[in-house]
Amino acid sequence: MKSLKECRVTVIGLGLMGASLCMDLVQKKLCREVRGVARRSRTVLDAFFAGAVDQATTDLHSGVAGADIVILATPVRIILDQLQEISPMLWPGALVMDMGSTKSDICAAMAQMPPGLQPIGAHPMTGKEVAGFEAAEPDLYLNATWVLSPLTRTSPEALALATELVQAVGANPVLLEAARHDRLVAAISHLPYLLAGGLTHTVADLAATDPKVWELAAGGFRDTSRVAASDTRMFLDILLTNRSAVLDQLDHFSRHLAELRNLLEAGDEPGLTALLNRSQAARSGWKKYSS
Amino acid sequence: MKSLKECRVTVIGLGLMGASLCMDLVQKKLCREVRGVARRSRTVLDAFFAGAVDQATTDLHSGVAGADIVILATPVRIILDQLQEISPMLWPGALVMDMGSTKSDICAAMAQMPPGLQPIGAHPMTGKEVAGFEAAEPDLYLNATWVLSPLTRTSPEALALATELVQAVGANPVLLEAARHDRLVAAISHLPYLLAGGLTHTVADLAATDPKVWELAAGGFRDTSRVAASDTRMFLDILLTNRSAVLDQLDHFSRHLAELRNLLEAGDEPGLTALLNRSQAARSGWKKYSS
Repeated sequence: MKSLKECRVTVIGLGLMGASLCMDLVQKKLCREVRGVARRSRTVLDAFFAGAVDQATTDLHSGVAGADIVILATPVRIILDQLQEISPMLWPGALVMDMGSTKSDICAAMAQMPPGLQPIGAHPMTGKEVAGFEAAEPDLYLNATWVLSPLTRTSPEALALATELVQAVGANPVLLEAARHDRLVAAISHLPYLLAGGLTHTVADLAATDPKVWELAAGGFRDTSRVAASDTRMFLDILLTNRSAVLDQLDHFSRHLAELRNLLEAGDEPGLTALLNRSQAARSGWKKYSS
Repeated sequence: MKSLKECRVTVIGLGLMGASLCMDLVQKKLCREVRGVARRSRTVLDAFFAGAVDQATTDLHSGVAGADIVILATPVRIILDQLQEISPMLWPGALVMDMGSTKSDICAAMAQMPPGLQPIGAHPMTGKEVAGFEAAEPDLYLNATWVLSPLTRTSPEALALATELVQAVGANPVLLEAARHDRLVAAISHLPYLLAGGLTHTVADLAATDPKVWELAAGGFRDTSRVAASDTRMFLDILLTNRSAVLDQLDHFSRHLAELRNLLEAGDEPGLTALLNRSQAARSGWKKYSS
């Protein structure tokens, strides 16, 4: 298998994630060529004139022709369709990687690809609540954890090439089986999104009778609700392709919230203090990010 | 009544909120003298040698003696005690203001103070999840909304002096009746705190069987859970002095979350899309902070 430097890379989907990756690949000259595929011709032009890609097209067929590495950076259920669609167009031995936020369905679809191809599931653990090409930026993946979910059919060489790509943009590869990945992100990403949505609805309802609430809202609301502003289409696909894990974590959360509620209603000060101290310690002990 | 420039100001409590205010008052020379009162002598020394105050003491009595303005910046239930304690020590006409996060109980206690005093409830809508003198910084209140809840007994001159102080540190005063303040902050501050706590408990439970979750957690978890790291004692007082409003908003939130859950479980894509689009629009339409 070629080294990254010798590879022609095609990125399908030039939103925040895909276009940010293209920018790194082009600007750091990490590979032989970067081709971008986008649905809208406007995005193709924007990406091309911004120098985010070497070539760009709206045509999936010419986009993937001759590519050594194909990376799918569209919403999860579009990835599922595109895996089928591109299969007959790819060169034997091509590495097929994705950037989708759930992995079980995608890895299952990858397992059905023609035997000559080298598919691997992948998910960079970063993002922003703003979407689209306009939000893309170089170095988005610097120091991010980037999950790789190899299939049993993925060759060691294909895994090595995927790892090389991840490390080349400054991210830290973590190998994780698809179902385990999905269970963990249900708690740390999909659940927070639903909580942020529920919180925003609650405040919006209050604002309907007292608009002053928007003026008073400060850092606590800002941060706790931030991800509610994320791209709806992207999250809809995530929720629907990780439904049972999300429902599990949601129910788990609801039990914790009910416990807090009951202690507060009962005015149980020692009980409430113990629970709040535990989450205080857990959250301030999480050293990955200084917040 | 004197202008702020001529006033001796005493701030009781030299944590994040109180000490940050002292720093602004001293460094911008906004008043005649700034005295700080802290429980621990260590804090008194730190504040004094950092130049955050002109004088500092652990003794409440000598701290408030001769003050034209007394500002209480301790946890809510300590404020309730201290309002009683300082009443006999204050000069007639002194402005008594607080920085507590709930206002109903505090304004009710203020109403019981001796008739010569000029109490007014106040709450600056800012903060950080780190507490204590070490976390204090100048300009914390710049552009913050600062709620003022005057009592019926508060004179126009006292309100004018409180307003002058708030504006002198760069904040925007907003007049709000105590119960209305408490209802609004239940939704935008106290509810987010409980959600962040519940989320942290949920992720910590998962981490007990799969510690990898901490490594994968990124921006979504970081922001949605941030306030769970806040000072427990401060929030315990907040929750217990705003119990019914918090329970109301919590129940309101739980209904929204249950609605999201049911749509997800049913795989109701149009229903889920409609709800998520509404919170997406509300949150990204909130222009106060670019997030």
